[in-house]
Amino acid sequence: MSRNDRKPDEIRPVKLEINTNKFAEGSVYIEVGDTKVICNATVEEKVPPFMKGQGRGWVTAEYSMLPRATHTRNIREAAKGKLGGRTMEIQRLIARALRSVVDLQALGERSITVDCDVIQADGGTRTTSITGAFVAMCLALDKLEAQGKLKRYPVTDFLASVSVGVVDGEALLDLRYEEDSAAKVDMNIVMTGSGEFVELQGTGEDRPFSRQELNELLELGETGVRQMIAIQKEALGASSLKIGNHGTGGLA
Amino acid sequence: MSRNDRKPDEIRPVKLEINTNKFAEGSVYIEVGDTKVICNATVEEKVPPFMKGQGRGWVTAEYSMLPRATHTRNIREAAKGKLGGRTMEIQRLIARALRSVVDLQALGERSITVDCDVIQADGGTRTTSITGAFVAMCLALDKLEAQGKLKRYPVTDFLASVSVGVVDGEALLDLRYEEDSAAKVDMNIVMTGSGEFVELQGTGEDRPFSRQELNELLELGETGVRQMIAIQKEALGASSLKIGNHGTGGLA
Amino acid sequence: MSRNDRKPDEIRPVKLEINTNKFAEGSVYIEVGDTKVICNATVEEKVPPFMKGQGRGWVTAEYSMLPRATHTRNIREAAKGKLGGRTMEIQRLIARALRSVVDLQALGERSITVDCDVIQADGGTRTTSITGAFVAMCLALDKLEAQGKLKRYPVTDFLASVSVGVVDGEALLDLRYEEDSAAKVDMNIVMTGSGEFVELQGTGEDRPFSRQELNELLELGETGVRQMIAIQKEALGASSLKIGNHGTGGLA
Amino acid sequence: MSRNDRKPDEIRPVKLEINTNKFAEGSVYIEVGDTKVICNATVEEKVPPFMKGQGRGWVTAEYSMLPRATHTRNIREAAKGKLGGRTMEIQRLIARALRSVVDLQALGERSITVDCDVIQADGGTRTTSITGAFVAMCLALDKLEAQGKLKRYPVTDFLASVSVGVVDGEALLDLRYEEDSAAKVDMNIVMTGSGEFVELQGTGEDRPFSRQELNELLELGETGVRQMIAIQKEALGASSLKIGNHGTGGLA
Amino acid sequence: MSRNDRKPDEIRPVKLEINTNKFAEGSVYIEVGDTKVICNATVEEKVPPFMKGQGRGWVTAEYSMLPRATHTRNIREAAKGKLGGRTMEIQRLIARALRSVVDLQALGERSITVDCDVIQADGGTRTTSITGAFVAMCLALDKLEAQGKLKRYPVTDFLASVSVGVVDGEALLDLRYEEDSAAKVDMNIVMTGSGEFVELQGTGEDRPFSRQELNELLELGETGVRQMIAIQKEALGASSLKIGNHGTGGLA
Amino acid sequence: MSRNDRKPDEIRPVKLEINTNKFAEGSVYIEVGDTKVICNATVEEKVPPFMKGQGRGWVTAEYSMLPRATHTRNIREAAKGKLGGRTMEIQRLIARALRSVVDLQALGERSITVDCDVIQADGGTRTTSITGAFVAMCLALDKLEAQGKLKRYPVTDFLASVSVGVVDGEALLDLRYEEDSAAKVDMNIVMTGSGEFVELQGTGEDRPFSRQELNELLELGETGVRQMIAIQKEALGASSLKIGNHGTGGLA
Repeated sequence: MSRNDRKPDEIRPVKLEINTNKFAEGSVYIEVGDTKVICNATVEEKVPPFMKGQGRGWVTAEYSMLPRATHTRNIREAAKGKLGGRTMEIQRLIARALRSVVDLQALGERSITVDCDVIQADGGTRTTSITGAFVAMCLALDKLEAQGKLKRYPVTDFLASVSVGVVDGEALLDLRYEEDSAAKVDMNIVMTGSGEFVELQGTGEDRPFSRQELNELLELGETGVRQMIAIQKEALGASSLKIGNHGTGGLA
Repeated sequence: MSRNDRKPDEIRPVKLEINTNKFAEGSVYIEVGDTKVICNATVEEKVPPFMKGQGRGWVTAEYSMLPRATHTRNIREAAKGKLGGRTMEIQRLIARALRSVVDLQALGERSITVDCDVIQADGGTRTTSITGAFVAMCLALDKLEAQGKLKRYPVTDFLASVSVGVVDGEALLDLRYEEDSAAKVDMNIVMTGSGEFVELQGTGEDRPFSRQELNELLELGETGVRQMIAIQKEALGASSLKIGNHGTGGLA
Repeated sequence: MSRNDRKPDEIRPVKLEINTNKFAEGSVYIEVGDTKVICNATVEEKVPPFMKGQGRGWVTAEYSMLPRATHTRNIREAAKGKLGGRTMEIQRLIARALRSVVDLQALGERSITVDCDVIQADGGTRTTSITGAFVAMCLALDKLEAQGKLKRYPVTDFLASVSVGVVDGEALLDLRYEEDSAAKVDMNIVMTGSGEFVELQGTGEDRPFSRQELNELLELGETGVRQMIAIQKEALGASSLKIGNHGTGGLA
Repeated sequence: MSRNDRKPDEIRPVKLEINTNKFAEGSVYIEVGDTKVICNATVEEKVPPFMKGQGRGWVTAEYSMLPRATHTRNIREAAKGKLGGRTMEIQRLIARALRSVVDLQALGERSITVDCDVIQADGGTRTTSITGAFVAMCLALDKLEAQGKLKRYPVTDFLASVSVGVVDGEALLDLRYEEDSAAKVDMNIVMTGSGEFVELQGTGEDRPFSRQELNELLELGETGVRQMIAIQKEALGASSLKIGNHGTGGLA
Repeated sequence: MSRNDRKPDEIRPVKLEINTNKFAEGSVYIEVGDTKVICNATVEEKVPPFMKGQGRGWVTAEYSMLPRATHTRNIREAAKGKLGGRTMEIQRLIARALRSVVDLQALGERSITVDCDVIQADGGTRTTSITGAFVAMCLALDKLEAQGKLKRYPVTDFLASVSVGVVDGEALLDLRYEEDSAAKVDMNIVMTGSGEFVELQGTGEDRPFSRQELNELLELGETGVRQMIAIQKEALGASSLKIGNHGTGGLA
Repeated sequence: MSRNDRKPDEIRPVKLEINTNKFAEGSVYIEVGDTKVICNATVEEKVPPFMKGQGRGWVTAEYSMLPRATHTRNIREAAKGKLGGRTMEIQRLIARALRSVVDLQALGERSITVDCDVIQADGGTRTTSITGAFVAMCLALDKLEAQGKLKRYPVTDFLASVSVGVVDGEALLDLRYEEDSAAKVDMNIVMTGSGEFVELQGTGEDRPFSRQELNELLELGETGVRQMIAIQKEALGASSLKIGNHGTGGLA
């Protein structure tokens, strides 16, 4: 299996639209190739019980796929009566990643929930969700700022994510579903605009990977994240200037 | 509260796109005003246990709303661990309505599941789902027919749905959310292309309604369904000629 | 299949006993033919969280069938760990219907829950439940009034329900199970003593129904509800004089 | 608190009606004082997976209370989504007790489920359920026998149950709710017609009990069970002659 | 099947270690033959809602088995999503037994939860849990006393438990799994140091048992409990002198 | 906070006992510092439905903590009725890691489930579980081999895991709970005996980490895994010679 739609170190075409939902405080529709995700950010003036009275905010995320986002239909988790392990793992990942670039003190005692609903899945749904969710969250914060509710803008850096993997011995950036299924090694990388790592999840279920392979994958990841951040910047426009570290070296 | 965006007997602008999902056998994206629904039809070569070996098929439906389809965020039913009564009621309604215009014998021992996922909700999500789901189902059946799997086309008539209600003493067609909340009497009407009723669900929780009001609402409903069917016909194109009763009087 | 136990526009023999439970504030045992339902009304001095502090009351209902109420044994919903869609739909219907004839302001900040438990099921369990639940609710309100807790009696009108349907081309009133299974069109009608509609739920899963059939069914429904209300009046005795609209035309 | 409605060694008035359900293979309505239970026995021509192919049958039981069987309303277990510990404990007890007097080989590869639904609860609901369930089970077996499906009648002995307890230092037979609440020691006794024990469950949560108290309680229990079996015999009529050990000494 | 590892009235070797957990307020590791249980007692400065503001404490217990505590692997109850009936029955029994020897007034408004986790099961897991849980609870109370939080030591008596049963016509003390499976009659006995009964649960599912057999089993039970209490005393050391009734006759 | 119980690149004392459970096919008790885990491997002669008839085996894992494994008591997941996200994430990780060193073809159509039950938790429960689970799995495979059920030994390499992290700017190996809570960057590393990576999960929730920090952490991880594998080898004794790659360079 050899990639012929683009070079090994190229990402798929990306489309990122903002303000797509009439009700949500921040909303994004993002396509990375045939992977399509709706990201809606909700602001609520309350925090989880364990954080009450500390003056700090909270950011969380939920992730779901429409039953027919995939080749065959999946039974809804609501019908099964419980969230699957994969879903929980992904929504915990998205939330942790978002929080890593938010100053919770600056957010104030309120919470932001970003819902990532996958409309169509062709590989990289979790990385696409993170990239889109970051923008949805920024838009919601813009609204809070415009309402004078924030002392300072709480986003400390850009944040985006891509998948990388080894397929047929070749390191590839941004795997589509077919490539992902054939990958021996599979890694999700979340990085900041400053070029540092927030999450690194590499798995070699089919065969282990060497230190050298790891290094190749990290290079590809950096390339991909850099491009994703450029797209985020364009979508956010002037608003992107408020994001911490925006001018300082790094990937942003 | 008086309607000023259109006349009492007018429906909102409708947009109906087909083949919007890469994987589903039939797919539709439908907007009725600000209500937006994705309808994906899945064909599976099996039937529920209670129907096995009878040579007849089955049609079913599921309904869900994205958490931020509404003004405030709703907790996901998957997170709650169970489907709410409203959801169950609606998906039972959609499925019953679809089955009423399908010859299950002609479908053969296979099943069609239509998933209706509400992306944005501004009143009439269940009626919009039915109108869209009917088209998604037809598209899936077109595919089965093209594969030579059907002896005859199993759709016996067109099927569409609208809501009607009494707001401030005035009978209105196709209520948006604001109108729906103010309605004293609220009715969902599902009709066939022949102009007959498939489902009639009228509720007067705030005050009962008279026989005369019922008659007015039924007239409005017929007007609305007629327009919805015209839109379905256009979307289906030539394929709509295969649908039973297509030439005979009625609304189609 | 032709009905031979009674005329098409006749209801089955009805038995309605009151005060059958030692603990419940209001209790009724009702038989309509071989359908047997226990209705117990409970008064609690609290309202659901979303209604607190408004000075208004709430009326709700629950519905269940004993496992062997039917020809074959059903698995208990408690054993399955969730309520089925049919159960939820029915208990929402009963509750909405009861609330339509209660002045929640006059009830005051307390709630009434009416439990309808079907002991034996032979068609019309939801309509029988509504007819019985209305009486159980009135009895509970009588007790509240006797305790001086009500400023005025909150029941604004009588309320009863019957099923109607089209079987072998013939419109029939009050279907027993065998008729219900054979019905092409099936409708549940809830009306007030004033002869207006509170709920209308008609389904033509096997074939759609025309406007004319609808009219025939509505006539039969009115006939049936009129008789049910007469039986309720007799059971309630003097207490029925307190119910709003009792003297004004209509069905009561 | 001193008992004044009857002597310490007297049971409450008992009413036991048979064939009260139109559908169940065996059905009983039993009252012991104000405790009222419906017992319906269902025969199914299958056994649980772990017993398949052994040629032996199975007997099981389920127990439930209507929400308003008690002074205040209990939330339904179906609404909670799970069975409580008390319910599970009781239905396991009823089932074990019934199996102790059934020759499962003689029953053949089929199962009997006895549903015990408490309509009103005034103490002794589990013991009343056992006494009623035994008769419902016999009636269902009578039907199987009449259909020629049994080689021999599988009931080896009579079976009944009563509660006993120590209230204010006095040993009492057949406690009503008020007495049960005040009891320091509380015991449920299930015995056969031959006068032997099948289940003995004694609890001294408030204070432990001595060997002598135990003996007193066992005497009372025997007295009570003897009377319950006499009532069962009368209800079963000629059919009771088929039950094993019917003529041999013991309590029957 | 004849017992050859010890005499019919002998218990298996017992090992009882204390303070085995670094975090729990009281902790015990107990082995009775090949049955191994970890008992951890937790003190929390709160009581269940129904007990608030009464100045009295509460004692409760939970019971679980590791999946491979038994010959074949059991599915985890957490994976099934609910507690089984056997588990609930056992944890209710342990809790009731513990409460029977605790002066809840003296405990003060706080609660003790004893977790009994069976590491390996070879018969008698519930009786072993009770015997171990009593010691874990005492250790937790010692800690509370040392902190000056108790006015008086709240344990009124010793408490231990053993199983007895009839196997091949012979009454046996402390059944191991193989014996338990072969037992026709099976009884769990919980007694205090004063030699009185707290719980008595006898079951004759395979055949009923006579009064004489009951007496034999009670004698064996007393013998077994006496030995268990001696072991508890040794483990508790000086602390055992605080337990009520410690000097007065009885088994302690 | 500075580590004073050992050097930054040292692991805690490890104790690894084998054959600790009488029933399990493979069993291990492992302590890493104060973290204590029981690992039991179960062999079942069946595979999950999606793998039937392929002649390949399956390896899976479950993970749980006793309620009082931690400073304060956690509510049991069985009592909550569902597995938490953290638990699911961990058991998926353990299973993936084990499968990475098993030749599923050589295992044959059977499955191995390794249960990891944390008795006491002081940091590194998931890494300790992996290290112990690997040995329990090998022991179960030894048993299968001794029974002549395996054509060849299916373990292709050693497998162990450690945690690493950055605390107060210093990279540390094998974090205990206190260090883990203070860590800004936290990484779990699973490696084979050949020195390659199987899983890499790094998180910088509190602040992102640089490429250089990553390299330092990977060095520490390799050091730790090397020591864990030495301990595994000693525990497995001669049996360790059967493991693939055992002689070839790497960490083993």
